[in-house]
Amino acid sequence: MATLLTGKPVVDRLAQELAPRIEALGRAGIAPTLAIVRMGERPDDLSYERTAKKRAESLGIAVHPFVLPEDAPQEALEAALDEVNADDSIHGCLLFRPLPAHIDEARACELLAPRKDVDGITLASLASVFTDGGTGFPPSTAAACLELLDHYEVPLEGKRVAVAGRSLVVGKPVSMMLLRRNATVTLCHSRTENLADVVREADVVICATGRARMFGAEFFRPGQTVLDVGINFDAEGNLCGDVDFDQAEPIVDALTPVPRGLGTVTTSVTMAHTVTAAEAALAAPAGGR
Amino acid sequence: MATLLTGKPVVDRLAQELAPRIEALGRAGIAPTLAIVRMGERPDDLSYERTAKKRAESLGIAVHPFVLPEDAPQEALEAALDEVNADDSIHGCLLFRPLPAHIDEARACELLAPRKDVDGITLASLASVFTDGGTGFPPSTAAACLELLDHYEVPLEGKRVAVAGRSLVVGKPVSMMLLRRNATVTLCHSRTENLADVVREADVVICATGRARMFGAEFFRPGQTVLDVGINFDAEGNLCGDVDFDQAEPIVDALTPVPRGLGTVTTSVTMAHTVTAAEAALAAPAGGR
Repeated sequence: MATLLTGKPVVDRLAQELAPRIEALGRAGIAPTLAIVRMGERPDDLSYERTAKKRAESLGIAVHPFVLPEDAPQEALEAALDEVNADDSIHGCLLFRPLPAHIDEARACELLAPRKDVDGITLASLASVFTDGGTGFPPSTAAACLELLDHYEVPLEGKRVAVAGRSLVVGKPVSMMLLRRNATVTLCHSRTENLADVVREADVVICATGRARMFGAEFFRPGQTVLDVGINFDAEGNLCGDVDFDQAEPIVDALTPVPRGLGTVTTSVTMAHTVTAAEAALAAPAGGR
Repeated sequence: MATLLTGKPVVDRLAQELAPRIEALGRAGIAPTLAIVRMGERPDDLSYERTAKKRAESLGIAVHPFVLPEDAPQEALEAALDEVNADDSIHGCLLFRPLPAHIDEARACELLAPRKDVDGITLASLASVFTDGGTGFPPSTAAACLELLDHYEVPLEGKRVAVAGRSLVVGKPVSMMLLRRNATVTLCHSRTENLADVVREADVVICATGRARMFGAEFFRPGQTVLDVGINFDAEGNLCGDVDFDQAEPIVDALTPVPRGLGTVTTSVTMAHTVTAAEAALAAPAGGR
């Protein structure tokens, strides 16, 4: 019977920490504001947008949506991002991805001002994650993993962590953040030989492959803490993680559920980044990049 | 008895590959040129400068030194870097580090135009290593590891690689480059628990801690390929690597010696990057960043 590492207590603690900061901004006449840039009406995006709006509202953060038709040209998207950059009342921006196939996504991401890049999509933000220097925010999902591990006081120093999946949204940035905390990090992926053996060695496992329930019993052993970053739907349309929960739960020491796990923390981390960005804008108004 | 993975055949092959490219540049009226920016007279720097000049000369690459006194102010260094950036006849630049203590090294590095950053010291170059995108060159030492592994046809796909050391010069960038080649990469370091066990698991080991002969017999097993990135001096003043060569050599399958190993390949990689930068400048003259 694993301890369930639910997101709610982490979300509640973040909300507590943010409240006085948002109040202080309010006294300075600033409402922290998050732009959401969306193309088309993908159900994933709409669902995440609803969640983000609700969370923002409960915290006292404003949301400013920029919605473009799915077939809008690159120029329209770039104009929206220019507007986000130029508008001093906007402190952070979420650009929903993947973007439609006709859009040059890399080019679009680079347009966003790094100071407003609260989900770590620009090269500048990613460089700061890689180098422990520069400015910018790490991707919210990667940062959410650390928030949750810290909240539940999971030891990282000197420990072995397996990160399965090497995306720029989770795998690579979370590896760098874990390394900074003196973990010994193994980056593994679909081409790893004997993946189950590699994952079973680790004290902490971050499952971020985006493949529904691929991590079954053979990947786990007692003593492990497992973070399931996956948000997938199975053949029956049920929301599930990358971990086969029913197989893993009797084996490991601690496990994040899906839903009610990391996803909810990720939203809160984006809000926290937005508040930090608003504070930075207050400290250095009309800021350069 | 390990196979010795010496640098010379790699260097010779790189020279062969570069010769026709340098000739082609010559026909277009371009002499590929590497600036070397040095502060003071550190013996390490002088020694590396001599090696670089000799290698450059043998290939037909020009070297343009910028030498500043050790106590020169930040402004003088920045003026030199501005000159490097502005001079279209300079294609690449090596900035010797560590810089003197009174210099803001991070700020200085960022001044170099990424297109001339042939040793991967700018955030833009490091971001491109991290993201597999953007523009810029990886740090030469990291790239040299891949050149040597490829030359000796060491399999990487799916294999376990332990990278010991997490610097931005070798450990982190080489990990990203190995990951791109589908290796399973474990980043370990001074705070790793049971470091010898972790290293012994790997098929390929990159030793890059900068600590003389720290990797003794207990770190190794038959079947391993070991790259020794270290350039250290022992108590008697003898050049040695991070690996205890006498202990490792009877155990492992293949090993780079120090000297005559990776160091010499690194110099050639810097030259190759300079030629590539010159080709890029020819293709896009008066280039933006």
